[in-house]
Amino acid sequence: MTAIDVHCHVMPLTLPDNPGADGRWPCVHCHGPTDASLMIDGKPFRKLDDRSWSPRRRMEDMDRDGITMQVLSPMPELLSYWFTASEAGTLCDHVNGALAEMVADAPGRFAGLGMVPMQDPAAAVAALERLIERFGLLGIEIGSNINGVQLGDARFEPVWQACAELGLAVFVHALHPVSAKAAGADPLTTAFVHFPLDVAMAASSLILAGVPARYPRLRLGFSHGGGGLGAMVGRLDRGWTMTDGFSGKLVERPSTHASRLFYDSNVYDPAFVRHLVRELAPGRVFLGGDYPYPLMQADLVGYMDSCGLSAAERQSLAEGAARQFLNL
Amino acid sequence: MTAIDVHCHVMPLTLPDNPGADGRWPCVHCHGPTDASLMIDGKPFRKLDDRSWSPRRRMEDMDRDGITMQVLSPMPELLSYWFTASEAGTLCDHVNGALAEMVADAPGRFAGLGMVPMQDPAAAVAALERLIERFGLLGIEIGSNINGVQLGDARFEPVWQACAELGLAVFVHALHPVSAKAAGADPLTTAFVHFPLDVAMAASSLILAGVPARYPRLRLGFSHGGGGLGAMVGRLDRGWTMTDGFSGKLVERPSTHASRLFYDSNVYDPAFVRHLVRELAPGRVFLGGDYPYPLMQADLVGYMDSCGLSAAERQSLAEGAARQFLNL
Repeated sequence: MTAIDVHCHVMPLTLPDNPGADGRWPCVHCHGPTDASLMIDGKPFRKLDDRSWSPRRRMEDMDRDGITMQVLSPMPELLSYWFTASEAGTLCDHVNGALAEMVADAPGRFAGLGMVPMQDPAAAVAALERLIERFGLLGIEIGSNINGVQLGDARFEPVWQACAELGLAVFVHALHPVSAKAAGADPLTTAFVHFPLDVAMAASSLILAGVPARYPRLRLGFSHGGGGLGAMVGRLDRGWTMTDGFSGKLVERPSTHASRLFYDSNVYDPAFVRHLVRELAPGRVFLGGDYPYPLMQADLVGYMDSCGLSAAERQSLAEGAARQFLNL
Repeated sequence: MTAIDVHCHVMPLTLPDNPGADGRWPCVHCHGPTDASLMIDGKPFRKLDDRSWSPRRRMEDMDRDGITMQVLSPMPELLSYWFTASEAGTLCDHVNGALAEMVADAPGRFAGLGMVPMQDPAAAVAALERLIERFGLLGIEIGSNINGVQLGDARFEPVWQACAELGLAVFVHALHPVSAKAAGADPLTTAFVHFPLDVAMAASSLILAGVPARYPRLRLGFSHGGGGLGAMVGRLDRGWTMTDGFSGKLVERPSTHASRLFYDSNVYDPAFVRHLVRELAPGRVFLGGDYPYPLMQADLVGYMDSCGLSAAERQSLAEGAARQFLNL
């Protein structure tokens, strides 16, 4: 059986030198051949091992776990919306190049979602064609907000249009959740509580801004099972009814749009995976393991098997939805 | 069949005069015997009709809709955490008195959840005994955050302790969601997107702070089906496993605590009600209609019947969970 894990992160072993003076520029301290630390602002941000950069090490784990293909995307902290577009562009090229090399190493086992400087939508659009032609990637990973700006903001319209026209998938991943700062959350609570809230905000913002309605060919996917979205979509529909489709902006219900978006299975809750697969978005839920970070879902295939799905639902979760999302 | 609607709001026709100079003090403009506006900061905040204050009018609607009992709580904007505790205390006494009068009018048809000045936890505790002895109420309604402070904050500990000892129910309702301001949301988006996010934050904050663990007799209920909580509880469990029970603070999993909290059915999504009833908190989900505001779930009993529940699940949703929450 084929199993495609769409939510897997990469952190290259080398990064370009800081082109400016901003201390948040990421850099890697190597401690040994399989042991490193990502440093941000002079402090260790995350311990890394060779799972972050070695295709061979990854394939050993994939073979052990029954994963046919990993879809590689940058460690979200690399997305770098807080630098100038030009500085970030340097990092984008570097990371996209590293992803391309890993894919080239074993094209049947890996596919890649790159990064573009969303803080400058025109620069992001310009980078998209290169993403395909130079790097051979299938889409982009973006943050659930861009420096605090919600994804439904009109400034991002050219990016959605270009991704729809170029056939690039967009994977929205939790990043620097706006509610965490507002709630004074500590880093642990941020990852567990506020990541899913920010993803719910991102999906709601895009739906209510009419992005999926205007770009029906745009393939939008959401990490963490869409976060809280699956619990809120009825309320969004109630709002649609109460407000005449949000003052005529949406012809179809929010839940109809939500059912056409894609979601990963990264919720650590087989019963809620079943809810996503059966109720929120049949045929649109793919595997997401968060390899290789501490939160990672161990034994992703076993987890899938514990969800109590039919053979057709399981086939879609394992492979079908991912193929559709990535246009494989 | 008995049906208890636990999520119903009251707005008295009269309010006390502003004791200070803060323009946010609420006041009612009467336009006719069944027609008024709540004014806040000199602007109309909400159109009201006699459903807000008339027990007779409510009972007509309840008879029409098959609702045996309404549990009355203040319109959340009355909670008044932004005034001094002494000013807010005046409003609390007035609103609690209005609730008590409505309950006294038809004690078999109404029960009441009052309000206390949570911005001053000592004053809130002092008000709790009066809530029982003078007003005969069964508990309190509180906001999902108190002036931006999360409910798990240590300052609120005496309130939880007193509510547990006095046997008072606590109904947590969305109010001024912290993510709305952070996301620059407009008022419509606030009600539809950010209310459920703030309720999820409130429930997570209480669980991770160990409040349900320390007060197993405390009965905590959440509006809007717990907001996004039902979509996130697996991730909270994953955090618990990864961090040794959040550094030893929680002996049991977050999902175990979540399964002992109470939730209303106010999610406008029969499939998600089923998920709440079967997966998140069996036996702990009660009816919540949000009477009499625009978002209100029409035909609450028909909505319940559309959820595809077993007879026992339906009985618990209609009545059993509410009786347990309110200790009726």
